[in-house]
Formats: sequence, C-alpha cells, structure tokens
Amino acid sequence: MTVPDKRVSTRLDPFVDAYAERTEGLKVSAVRALFAVANRPEVVSLAGGMPNISDLPLKALGSAIGGLIESRGPQIMNYGSGQGEEKLREQICEVMALEGIEASPDNIVISCGSQQGLDLVTRILVNPGDVILVESPTYVGALGTFSSYQGKVIHVDTDDQGIIPSGVVAATEMVRSSGRTVKFLYTIPNFNNPSGVLMSVERRRELIAVAQELDIILVEDNPYGLLTFDLPPQPALRSMDADHVIYLGSFSKTFAPGFRVGWVLAPPGVLKKLVLAQESATLCPPVFSQFAISEYLSTCDWKGQIEQFRSMYKQRRDALLRGLEDHMPPGTSWTHPEGGFFVWLTLPEGFDSDQLSARATSHRVAYVPGTGFYADGLGSRNMRLSFCFPTPERIYEGTRRLGEAIAEEAELRATFGFVNPCGSPSGLPAPGES
Amino acid sequence: MTVPDKRVSTRLDPFVDAYAERTEGLKVSAVRALFAVANRPEVVSLAGGMPNISDLPLKALGSAIGGLIESRGPQIMNYGSGQGEEKLREQICEVMALEGIEASPDNIVISCGSQQGLDLVTRILVNPGDVILVESPTYVGALGTFSSYQGKVIHVDTDDQGIIPSGVVAATEMVRSSGRTVKFLYTIPNFNNPSGVLMSVERRRELIAVAQELDIILVEDNPYGLLTFDLPPQPALRSMDADHVIYLGSFSKTFAPGFRVGWVLAPPGVLKKLVLAQESATLCPPVFSQFAISEYLSTCDWKGQIEQFRSMYKQRRDALLRGLEDHMPPGTSWTHPEGGFFVWLTLPEGFDSDQLSARATSHRVAYVPGTGFYADGLGSRNMRLSFCFPTPERIYEGTRRLGEAIAEEAELRATFGFVNPCGSPSGLPAPGES
Repeated sequence: MTVPDKRVSTRLDPFVDAYAERTEGLKVSAVRALFAVANRPEVVSLAGGMPNISDLPLKALGSAIGGLIESRGPQIMNYGSGQGEEKLREQICEVMALEGIEASPDNIVISCGSQQGLDLVTRILVNPGDVILVESPTYVGALGTFSSYQGKVIHVDTDDQGIIPSGVVAATEMVRSSGRTVKFLYTIPNFNNPSGVLMSVERRRELIAVAQELDIILVEDNPYGLLTFDLPPQPALRSMDADHVIYLGSFSKTFAPGFRVGWVLAPPGVLKKLVLAQESATLCPPVFSQFAISEYLSTCDWKGQIEQFRSMYKQRRDALLRGLEDHMPPGTSWTHPEGGFFVWLTLPEGFDSDQLSARATSHRVAYVPGTGFYADGLGSRNMRLSFCFPTPERIYEGTRRLGEAIAEEAELRATFGFVNPCGSPSGLPAPGES
Repeated sequence: MTVPDKRVSTRLDPFVDAYAERTEGLKVSAVRALFAVANRPEVVSLAGGMPNISDLPLKALGSAIGGLIESRGPQIMNYGSGQGEEKLREQICEVMALEGIEASPDNIVISCGSQQGLDLVTRILVNPGDVILVESPTYVGALGTFSSYQGKVIHVDTDDQGIIPSGVVAATEMVRSSGRTVKFLYTIPNFNNPSGVLMSVERRRELIAVAQELDIILVEDNPYGLLTFDLPPQPALRSMDADHVIYLGSFSKTFAPGFRVGWVLAPPGVLKKLVLAQESATLCPPVFSQFAISEYLSTCDWKGQIEQFRSMYKQRRDALLRGLEDHMPPGTSWTHPEGGFFVWLTLPEGFDSDQLSARATSHRVAYVPGTGFYADGLGSRNMRLSFCFPTPERIYEGTRRLGEAIAEEAELRATFGFVNPCGSPSGLPAPGES
C-alpha cells in the first residue's frame, strides 16, 4: 500500500502558503466525489440530485429560444441589470404566489442558481465565527458555503415535523451566553435535502414565533416546495412573516438547472446589500438564461409541466419505497417523503454507510453516505437515496442491489465479528433515530 | 434643501447591525449609478462599457442554439461540471493560443463572467488586510471585488508603457517592511480599463522579471487583448511565465457578455482551490451558456467575427479621437489607445470631472468620472470615455457636446472664480500627468 507523502504534495504547490484562511473550509463534497463512480452506466445511481428533465417540451423550447436570439439577440446577449431582469422578477412573483407569498419584484435579486443566492446571503451576513443554526441533517452544499465564509454551524434536533423550536431556543441561548452571535437559521422546510422531511404547518407557525421572539433571521431554502405528491403546496415561511425571512427560490427543479437561475427575496435593506454583492461577484447574473426562462414561462404551460413532474417523481418515490420494503433487512428504517427527491435511510445498528459504500459500488449501486450532511461527524449509519433521476424499474433494481450489499456485509460481520477498518466507535446512537 | 436624516434611514433597516464587516466595502459603483441617466435615448453615452454586438450572426446563432436544445436539451439544460465543460475548455485553449499561451484544458475553470473569476481568485487568496497592487488607474469592478474581501489596494505609478516595475519593487518592499503581505499584483496589460494603455512587450518582460525576483503572483485580466486596431495581438504575460501568472479570460468582448462565460487559467494547486470555490459558489457555472458558446465556436467563423469587431471598434476609436481633437479646449489631454474600448481624458487644471458631470448631462452627454478608478481619491481631473457602443457619428456628436459643457464651465469660472460646490481642494496634481 502506497502512503501519500504529504511533504511531496505540499512541495508541488508553490502557492501553499498564499491561500486565504477561508480556503481551509473548502473540501471536495461527498456528493461530487461520488460522481465518477455513480455515473458509470452499469451502476444504478441513487446518489445524484440531478432532475429528470427529459419530458420538457424540447421542440417548443428550442424554437422559442432560437427565435428570441434572432429577434432580440443584441439585447438578450448583452450585459443586464445587476438585480436581474424586471419581467422575470415579476413572473417569479407569480411562481411564489403558489406557496402563498405576496412579494414585490423590487425585493428580488436573481442569482446564478440558488446556490449563489445562498453564497451572497452568507457573504453579506456572516463574519468569521458567527453561528448559523441548521437542521439535522442539512444540505451538504449549504455546509460548504457556510464553511467557506468561516461560519460556525450548529445542528438543531429535527423530527418528522421539522426542526424542533425548543431546540432553536436552547441553541440560541447557549450561543448568546457565550458572547457569540446567531447570524441566521437555515432551513429547507419542504422535503429537506437529504432527509425528505416536510415541516408541518403547525411547526412553521411555532418556528416563526420563536424567530420573532429571539429576533433571528430565517433563511428559507425552497427548491422542492412545488414538487408535492400527496398534498397541495404548503404555505412558505415567508408567507407568514415578511420581515424575518430571507427566501431562496430556484428554477432548477421546476424547470431546468442548466440555466443557473435562482433568486433571493429579502427585506429591502438586505436586498440592497445583496444587489451590490451580486454586482461585485458577477456584474450581473446570466442575462441570456433569464430571458430564456422568461420566454419559457410566457409561452409554455409551466404549471402543467410541474404537474407532470409531480406525477413522474411520485412514481419514482413509490418505486423506491416499494423496493426498500422488499429488500431491506430488519432494523433498517427510512423516511416516507411526500414530495421532493430524497429518502433518508438509517442502517441497522453497527453498520457504517461510508464503509458500506465500496461494497455497494461492487454491487453496482451508489448512494451518498450520511456524514456529508452533518458538520459534526454524525450520520455514519445514514445514507441519502435519491429517486429523481433513474427510471422506476432501475430504482427498484437499485434497492435490490443495496439489499445484497447489506446482506453480504452482515454475513461478514457474523463470520468475523464487527468489521470496521476505520476504527470508528460502534454503538453510537445514530442521528435520525431520536 | 432636504437633509437626509441618517437615524431615520437606519431605523428603516432592522438588519443594520447584522451585516458582515466585509459589506462595509460594498458601494454603488460610479459606472452603475450613471446608468439611469446614460441610458436615456437623447443622451450620447460615452459612459458604459457595453459592447456593440448587433453584427453577430443572429440567424445562424438562433438556429444553432435552438437546434442544440432540441437535440441535446436534457444534457445541456442539466447540472454540469464544477470546473466547466471539457470541450469548451479545449476550445478556450485555441482562443488563448492567439496570444501565445500554451495551456492544458485541465488548468482552466469556467466562471460566470471573468468578474466571477476575479471574485474566486480573490476569495481563495486574500485575507482581510492583505495588499493587492494595482495600476493607476484600474478597473472599478476589480476595486469593488478587492474591497468586498477586505483587501487593501495600493496603486503603483503607471506610464504610457504600463505599470512601472521599479514602483512595484518599491511598493512591495514598503509593504513587506511593515509586516504585511502583497497577495498579488492585478494588471490589465491590454488596453487597460479605464486608461486604454497597452503594456509594451519590453515592460512585460521587466514585470515578469520583477515578479519572479520578488515571488509575487500576477493576476492578468485580459478581456480586450484580441481587439487590437493597429497591431497584431500582443504576447500575454501568461505566455512568458506559467508559474507566476493567474490569467483571466472572457467571451464578453470577443463574442457576447450575456452568456456570462469567462475563465481562469491557473497553476494546478491554485486551480484545484478555484474549482472547489466555484462548486461552493454556484455548484457549476452556467451550463447552457457554455454549450451555446461552444456551439458558436464550432459552427461560426469566430475569428472572422473578431476581425469585424476590430474594424468596427477602430472606426469608433477614430471618431472619438477626431472629435476630441476638434472640440477639446487647450490644456486637455487624452490617451490614444491602439485597441479596446476606452480613452482616458485629463481636464485642464482646476476642473473637476465629478462636478462637471451634471453639466455634461444637461448637454446630453455622459462619461464616467475618474475617481471611481482609484481606491485613494485621485482621478478628479480625469474621465473615462468609451467608444464601444454608440455609432461613430454619435460619438463625434458626444465630443461636441462635451466640449460645450467644458466651455460653459470655463466661462462660469472666468466670471465667478473657481466653482466648486463640493469644497474639494483645487490645484491638486491630477493623476495621469506624471
């Protein structure tokens, strides 16, 4: 076995002493690291979060966008507003109205995907060492952004109704009593990535009340809210309080991610700072993409398309749940999401999802191990299973392969005792069980 | 006259105490603030830096990009690589070869416009308080980015051959002797924005030698290098030293800015950090835009298009220089750029370009006052005049109006003495004279 020589790899980068302190938080995300393996055609990938957009009206879209270039090219291919195109911001208000939000286009800034929206929000709010409260577990890409601005993440306990308000109160008091600042609470209330949990309406009301009481900003990240399967879209936190909520929206799941168009809806003072930060970061968000999406919303049946997505993803969710039911051993548990892209699975006691990963790959199935969704090392018995991209048949087959991998691991454990080459402690309570 | 009540405007933003320290550097750029006025149709705008892209082959482009959506929509509208699409990175190597650069696609990361490339470079390199050396004057958008990461900018004297190497040495020694770090030197060697100055080849060699001697990173920002009028493209700094130069490229001026596609070419260690920072900032740069540009480069005569741009902008440069010759009063001087978009003008002694701005607007001509291009308050006798967007006739007419505004100001000064409502000191040496 070759041990990498750290001195050599250091010597290879002459800039090793030049990097800013904030780069210490930069690391390869667990999701990204899996891509090479998960994208091999023989592997059923339950790992990626890539939407299935093959049912979009490609012919109509191609003709509409091609025509737009011919008729308005010099405008739509030039620089635009740092805040984003006004017509698109008006259309975004119509989209948000589906979740009960009343907003003015003036309070929206367009971002290069909602990931960049979160980056800008963090940039204008977080000083190094400031605390950000998050759900348990939470979106790996948000953890990366917070870390790159040297924010300190604290996970708050979360149950099947969402983040627990008394936990928010306790964490805030603890942080404040140590002289630090809670800069905001980051939540994905609809079909959380990775847990799939939907925050109940009652819980939303309680969380808003706590935020008002403690004067905490809520950052509501909502890519999946319109992709409900068994119920109508739920009222956004922003629909309950316009003053304490910064709202992040995205076209990546209701239309297509490749345009990289998301948005932030924020109170006026925050919005002004966000626009300045956007101009500093990009001059203006992608102009051509904005016109393309605006044209799609104007000329295509976007609401009908969302209905189609809901029904398509529901079939896939059903295939995954059926497969888990058929193939998982006793002692395994998982969430039953009513929308979105993800199921969160907890392995039987003693299993480690990082460790199981290689065996799963050899059985030609991929998932994302749970530890990436925690800033504090928890999640080792968990995995994120996504049902967005493969067909229902492939998803079902994926669960069969996963069941095989788990059975093989269990057999080895029965034969040789507890197998854990990494030496991590067994018997820890796994998150998601409480 | 209404004096704004600072307490009231503060009370209007309940988040006023929540912002991160880095937002203190965020301010409305002088260029952006002018847009509302400069875009009125009766005004000749010599202010904006918007390229004239009306001669692009719109029909061919619309048909190529529309066809791409029909044939490959599910791929080109989905998430893509954080580093950027491989084929486009290969094509970018062909583009850079025109300025003598030999590079591997592996060492390129795509950015959301080269502005975002600069943002990422600053993010991974600059700690608060680190020093960045820049030309005098330099790009206002770069000053904004450096400020937003709390970098400290020091201007180095610049003449008609570019930045002065002995000034770089002196500034570096001064910074280092005070215990601080020069993180990099930022330069626009080709047709500097705003001065229009082209760094001579001899000066490039000297600068590289100084960078090697002092072990300083050079950040070479090159949006205009292929838009030469009277000479062939010059060798890039990066073509002379691959180890000390981080190179920023852009399609905004050689094709179209609305796609927001630029790139960074960097040594391997830096590149790795930039890709992680890009994933954290946006997940991936605009995918659809990248495929659209790649298709343009594959199917259209992009080199011929650049020739057309060169000849079109040359005519506009000529109109501006002819107009200045015909309409500027004695004591005015200006640069004679051999490419790019900008002329840098120095008003006669005693004039203030910020102050003249309102009078120019009433004469229906707009420019950007010089102070925005300095971090240290200089530039008050200067203005940036751009010749990229209006027709040659309008540009010439703009100089006539500017001449009228200056003459009117001069007349008032002769009648009433020195007119300076802002109370800034007169008689200061103006930058650009040395």
